[in-house]
Amino acid sequence: MAKNNKSKKKRIAKTIGKAPGTGGYVGQKQRDKTDIEIHEFAKDSFECIKTNNVEDAFKFKTTDQITWININGLNLTEEIAKLGDFYGLHPLVLEDILNTEHRPKVDEYPEYFFIVLKMLYFNKEEQFTIEHISLIVGKNYVLTFQESEEDIFDSVRGRIANPESKIRNFGADYLGFALMDTIVDNYFAIVEDFGEKIESMEDQVFVENPVESTPQDIQMLKREILKIRRSVFPLREVISRLEKTENPIMEERTRDYFRDVYDHIIQINENIEIYRDMVWGLMDMYMTTVSNKMNNIMKVLTIIATIFIPLTFIAGIYGMNFEYMPELHFKYSYYVLWGVMALVFLIMLYYFRRKKWL
Amino acid sequence: MAKNNKSKKKRIAKTIGKAPGTGGYVGQKQRDKTDIEIHEFAKDSFECIKTNNVEDAFKFKTTDQITWININGLNLTEEIAKLGDFYGLHPLVLEDILNTEHRPKVDEYPEYFFIVLKMLYFNKEEQFTIEHISLIVGKNYVLTFQESEEDIFDSVRGRIANPESKIRNFGADYLGFALMDTIVDNYFAIVEDFGEKIESMEDQVFVENPVESTPQDIQMLKREILKIRRSVFPLREVISRLEKTENPIMEERTRDYFRDVYDHIIQINENIEIYRDMVWGLMDMYMTTVSNKMNNIMKVLTIIATIFIPLTFIAGIYGMNFEYMPELHFKYSYYVLWGVMALVFLIMLYYFRRKKWL
Amino acid sequence: MAKNNKSKKKRIAKTIGKAPGTGGYVGQKQRDKTDIEIHEFAKDSFECIKTNNVEDAFKFKTTDQITWININGLNLTEEIAKLGDFYGLHPLVLEDILNTEHRPKVDEYPEYFFIVLKMLYFNKEEQFTIEHISLIVGKNYVLTFQESEEDIFDSVRGRIANPESKIRNFGADYLGFALMDTIVDNYFAIVEDFGEKIESMEDQVFVENPVESTPQDIQMLKREILKIRRSVFPLREVISRLEKTENPIMEERTRDYFRDVYDHIIQINENIEIYRDMVWGLMDMYMTTVSNKMNNIMKVLTIIATIFIPLTFIAGIYGMNFEYMPELHFKYSYYVLWGVMALVFLIMLYYFRRKKWL
Amino acid sequence: MAKNNKSKKKRIAKTIGKAPGTGGYVGQKQRDKTDIEIHEFAKDSFECIKTNNVEDAFKFKTTDQITWININGLNLTEEIAKLGDFYGLHPLVLEDILNTEHRPKVDEYPEYFFIVLKMLYFNKEEQFTIEHISLIVGKNYVLTFQESEEDIFDSVRGRIANPESKIRNFGADYLGFALMDTIVDNYFAIVEDFGEKIESMEDQVFVENPVESTPQDIQMLKREILKIRRSVFPLREVISRLEKTENPIMEERTRDYFRDVYDHIIQINENIEIYRDMVWGLMDMYMTTVSNKMNNIMKVLTIIATIFIPLTFIAGIYGMNFEYMPELHFKYSYYVLWGVMALVFLIMLYYFRRKKWL
Amino acid sequence: MAKNNKSKKKRIAKTIGKAPGTGGYVGQKQRDKTDIEIHEFAKDSFECIKTNNVEDAFKFKTTDQITWININGLNLTEEIAKLGDFYGLHPLVLEDILNTEHRPKVDEYPEYFFIVLKMLYFNKEEQFTIEHISLIVGKNYVLTFQESEEDIFDSVRGRIANPESKIRNFGADYLGFALMDTIVDNYFAIVEDFGEKIESMEDQVFVENPVESTPQDIQMLKREILKIRRSVFPLREVISRLEKTENPIMEERTRDYFRDVYDHIIQINENIEIYRDMVWGLMDMYMTTVSNKMNNIMKVLTIIATIFIPLTFIAGIYGMNFEYMPELHFKYSYYVLWGVMALVFLIMLYYFRRKKWL
Repeated sequence: MAKNNKSKKKRIAKTIGKAPGTGGYVGQKQRDKTDIEIHEFAKDSFECIKTNNVEDAFKFKTTDQITWININGLNLTEEIAKLGDFYGLHPLVLEDILNTEHRPKVDEYPEYFFIVLKMLYFNKEEQFTIEHISLIVGKNYVLTFQESEEDIFDSVRGRIANPESKIRNFGADYLGFALMDTIVDNYFAIVEDFGEKIESMEDQVFVENPVESTPQDIQMLKREILKIRRSVFPLREVISRLEKTENPIMEERTRDYFRDVYDHIIQINENIEIYRDMVWGLMDMYMTTVSNKMNNIMKVLTIIATIFIPLTFIAGIYGMNFEYMPELHFKYSYYVLWGVMALVFLIMLYYFRRKKWL
Repeated sequence: MAKNNKSKKKRIAKTIGKAPGTGGYVGQKQRDKTDIEIHEFAKDSFECIKTNNVEDAFKFKTTDQITWININGLNLTEEIAKLGDFYGLHPLVLEDILNTEHRPKVDEYPEYFFIVLKMLYFNKEEQFTIEHISLIVGKNYVLTFQESEEDIFDSVRGRIANPESKIRNFGADYLGFALMDTIVDNYFAIVEDFGEKIESMEDQVFVENPVESTPQDIQMLKREILKIRRSVFPLREVISRLEKTENPIMEERTRDYFRDVYDHIIQINENIEIYRDMVWGLMDMYMTTVSNKMNNIMKVLTIIATIFIPLTFIAGIYGMNFEYMPELHFKYSYYVLWGVMALVFLIMLYYFRRKKWL
Repeated sequence: MAKNNKSKKKRIAKTIGKAPGTGGYVGQKQRDKTDIEIHEFAKDSFECIKTNNVEDAFKFKTTDQITWININGLNLTEEIAKLGDFYGLHPLVLEDILNTEHRPKVDEYPEYFFIVLKMLYFNKEEQFTIEHISLIVGKNYVLTFQESEEDIFDSVRGRIANPESKIRNFGADYLGFALMDTIVDNYFAIVEDFGEKIESMEDQVFVENPVESTPQDIQMLKREILKIRRSVFPLREVISRLEKTENPIMEERTRDYFRDVYDHIIQINENIEIYRDMVWGLMDMYMTTVSNKMNNIMKVLTIIATIFIPLTFIAGIYGMNFEYMPELHFKYSYYVLWGVMALVFLIMLYYFRRKKWL
Repeated sequence: MAKNNKSKKKRIAKTIGKAPGTGGYVGQKQRDKTDIEIHEFAKDSFECIKTNNVEDAFKFKTTDQITWININGLNLTEEIAKLGDFYGLHPLVLEDILNTEHRPKVDEYPEYFFIVLKMLYFNKEEQFTIEHISLIVGKNYVLTFQESEEDIFDSVRGRIANPESKIRNFGADYLGFALMDTIVDNYFAIVEDFGEKIESMEDQVFVENPVESTPQDIQMLKREILKIRRSVFPLREVISRLEKTENPIMEERTRDYFRDVYDHIIQINENIEIYRDMVWGLMDMYMTTVSNKMNNIMKVLTIIATIFIPLTFIAGIYGMNFEYMPELHFKYSYYVLWGVMALVFLIMLYYFRRKKWL
Repeated sequence: MAKNNKSKKKRIAKTIGKAPGTGGYVGQKQRDKTDIEIHEFAKDSFECIKTNNVEDAFKFKTTDQITWININGLNLTEEIAKLGDFYGLHPLVLEDILNTEHRPKVDEYPEYFFIVLKMLYFNKEEQFTIEHISLIVGKNYVLTFQESEEDIFDSVRGRIANPESKIRNFGADYLGFALMDTIVDNYFAIVEDFGEKIESMEDQVFVENPVESTPQDIQMLKREILKIRRSVFPLREVISRLEKTENPIMEERTRDYFRDVYDHIIQINENIEIYRDMVWGLMDMYMTTVSNKMNNIMKVLTIIATIFIPLTFIAGIYGMNFEYMPELHFKYSYYVLWGVMALVFLIMLYYFRRKKWL
């Protein structure tokens, strides 16, 4: 991890002092070819093209259909620059599209909305993935820029293909909403999954024997929840600004839907806060468990030592070699001694029972 | 629990990417038949009908009486959809009625208020239950949608039956208030009960012998208070918005009553915060108790070891087999030795007393 | 305590679902007779009556003097209802007068201010008492409703009797202020007393030997400070609203005085926050003290064990019965051995001194 | 301390219920004579008088010079009352001047500003002192009321004596600013000194051997920082209101200077928050140090016990008196045994080394 | 460190009570000569001069080119005063330029903006350095005042030299932005580096053997993050005010760029908060590790003691010298005894295994 970070640092270092609007791709996902996926549709028409040439997308702009161009891969900065040129995107927008470390935000330009989000999902290898995704929502087009070709938009694609769906009947703003709604819906799954992790960690701490790596696992949960939180928390403001904008690109009827997404975001944030509290509490509980184990260890030691040390002392007494020790010569001394020892033993046992140590 | 969550996750996963307004029932309570309970009343008339056919409710809309339709069970989504159609409810409203995970909120539509609440009560089996309940409050109708047929509204039903009551003399908004007031009043009982649980837990930690499961119980209290908090906290804003609305559905005189409910909510929230503080403090106290027990264990060990180890050493000395050990041959050596040992023993006792270990 | 709470819960349960405005007396103080105390005064006249008949108070309303009616006891709800009728009080006001669990607040009605406060004082038995008190401040009358006949208003009564005093020369609003000012001034004494308790607890934790009940005592302090805080904190807003009201009942000149009370409330709240911090810190310190004690116990054990275990081993060696052990037959073996043991002992002592354990 | 508090409590108790505006001197500093120090100056004239008769100050009011009257001692309430009469001060102002427990604030009256501050300094005996100081800033006069004759204004006196200084050339508002600026500048020294105390405490906890009184010292630091914070924190609002006032007493050009003081206050508050965090962290570190010491103690015990207990057992075996123990009669048994013991010893040593306990 | 602080305290003490606008240089970096670096450029012209005479800069003011004067060293207060005179800077501005303890802020004057920042970087010796830097941004000039000659502006210098760059084509406000942008970009590198330190500390706590100095290292990280936070946090407001100013010095097009910087600052602050949380968590983890080590130590002790103490007791029994002990005379007693001991040993082993201590 340290190594990984060091290389990122170098990458960042390289961009320091560059004129703004010239920052390169900062993320870590490298792909071989950029898939450009173009959906072109209206109420009664629908076309879907996959291409590697970004210029294939340009012929669509003039039509009065709605165009969704999805760029799968941020490494081909050149192609993205062409697209930016064609749609008249501000240089700072292009920089932020490529800066995968950027936090979620919305910038309102007269011609379009620029929205930065984090797509959280479990990828094909079932690994938790945070992917930087940018949306440009204009009057009749939506541009999306993803880091990898894997995504969570299949259901949206299905609804575009269905002529009955609202997406086909509403404007580009509704398509933008549908994409964001899908992303937010996925947060629920991620957060639920996190809740399960916490519960299984609780089981580990309480029921099973916590191992020495438990604090490390808890620390990893802390990191993860902080990462999720950082991706999700700023969305509250993003959605709120989209809901309240006066820009005509965002139609009145779409705002109701954003209000709905806003409710979801609030709920997700609440859950995250609760899980945060619980993860922090886990450490306390682990400490308690460790303390309890220590108590048990000490009890065993104390019981054994407290029983046998006095007995050993008694045995030691009659191991002495004094010439004049009358007890040594009585016939039943030995048996009496065993009796005394048994008595001491029983008193001890009784004492421990009363203390509830046994 | 983990299993339970997993299945919920799957259910949520199924709704991801669906067009909004098509989400299904997410809760876990399944009932066999939907009870539809219709109250129809005015100042001088009153009727109460139980039916399974939601269409029985529709004949009432045209009359200038006040109608309360109570749907007991969210599983019959079809029937609910019919009702939504009849009263012109927004698709997102229908979705939120069925989404039992939704947090409390109020949405104001021109024709009605849509209010989502959590009903907290102890059910017939005396189990703590959180039930999702939605209210639609219109000009002359109130619709309520509950998860199960059990509820806490019997007193409201009684007041409707009584022609002298305010409910009979005021509008639908007052009926809506009365239902919400009953829900909030119940929170007091729930929160008081939680207070008692904390106190009995404190007794367990301090007075009785805390057991190893205590941290687990404390953790469960933490979870419960977080759950209650999540259900109750958003209500503050809900009630505040109802109090301040300018929508004519909510009459002036009803607002005074909402202000009263608002005061109650503030008070409940304060109590919850105090209990939260106290539950968090419980863990500290448990740790202290554990530490104190450890101290006591160590004291016993130390006292026993400190007394007998030196004595055993002395005995060991005279168990040596050297040829020339003058003490061995004195006549009273043995008795003198006992005296020395007794002295050592008494000194130790005195030392421990002074240290207040005994 | 648990029992106490349970009965309160039942009482609360009884009021759930009742129409608002019909709630009964929830507090726990029951008295045999209601004292009604009437002060009637103007610049140049003064009369004080004690009676059991609330109707004795009504003849005063028409005069242009100022009337202060003080009801000592909330159990005679009937009499209070009559008074409410006579002065035209809102049903919700009457309900809140009787609800001793209600938090401090101010409600502004066109004809009067309704103010709920908590009176904190040490009663005749020197017990800390929280008493619910409500004030109605109208144009030329002040009504106060207390739980018990004990109160802290004697100085106000004295000032009313004094024709030179401001109370006699200003309006009913100033009398209301004087009563509230007296209540707030008492908070200082309560908070100071709490500060002393913390200090004596600190002494107990640090200087004297903390006992096992210390965490319990600390927990009780926590509860108490939370209770005080809950009574005092909302006052900030109450006073602030009285200071800023535009209602002509509250005259301009009186507002300056409320600003002064406001400053006091801020200061009390600050002190409470500081004491809160300190009480929370006490637990940490107790833990530290417990840990230090454990360290001392372990030191004693370690010193004794570390000195005598090796010595016992040496003694054990020469207690063996081997036929060929040359040392056993040397003349000075025994004395040499004592020397060796003394040496070991001294080395150990030196070692512990260097470690600062002795 | 407890005794001290008790007497203060009594003093406060005495003022409860008094009419406002009649509160007496609550502080603890008693002096024998009130020094009244009068500075009278204009651009080209300057006079400084020390007197015990407050009426000496009155002749100056009519002149169009600027007058600074500094009252050293709050015990002569009579004299202060005369001054209040002469300058037309509100009775509540006089009360707050004498109430040394009052928190910093500013009250704006048409004719003057009333400012309450805390002067923090190390007095002649190098003790940390918090002194209550009030300023009245009028059109052409400044009144200051201090608890003791010691203060930190010598530099201001010097600047008044210097005809080139801004104080001589600007109005009374600038003199007021100069005094407040001096007070705030002193906070820096106090806060820096506190930072040093924290560092030396850190050294004590880490490098040197923490003693058992360390938690007590940390607790004292906590108290002290809370006291400083309480004195300094409210100043933020005070200065901000002075900067933004529209009252013509405060001239435009002086506001720039108040903005500068405001910056300083923010910075001081930030430092205080940081030190607060650090003091709280000290307790954690002390606990860690205590735990580490415990670990070391336990290591010593464990090493000694683990080495010698098995060896003692072996010795015990051959101390048994069985008739038939072949080993006892071999010639080299004794030497072999020593070898075995040495081996056990070395294995143990190796084990502890590997565990890094040695 | 303590010594260092003391001397600073003295320095601060010296400035207390001085008239504002006369404060001297408070920082600790002393250089031998002040480098004055002058960049003079327009779209088609460019000149860069290094000089020691501040008056060399003055000839440029009248030209309609843009002038950037960079003062490397705050010790030559005289030269800075001349510059302040020439550009008409407010005395308080000059004071704040020299006060290296000042927190970041922006002051808006009609003729210029005065901006105080902290430059964070690793200097030539790879040490983390916080340098106080002030910017004056006027209509056609930018003045910068640094503590040392080392800085991070080389890339800006390069862009000025390049006639194609935006700096050459935009106004002085854009140059100001470029400098601030470079400073903010450097924060990323600093914060990333801090993240690496935390990770390596985590490794030290978890994976490697934490040493006793670990808490000290953690405490140092705490201090460092608090220092960084203090330098960076106030920038949020600074940039926000620059973005929203209505002063024409700041052109419309430059504001978009400030919005971009604002996003960066938010992101840096978020990262700092996360790292803060993590550093605080490190202490908990260290405690856990210490507790785990203690548990392991105690386990070893308990296992050894629990096995050998009973065995030693048995051996002790048969070391007694009673005349009548039948077992001593049986032929196989000794071997049976070994068997019994082996059995006890195995039972113990089994017990520890079941407890998972082995």
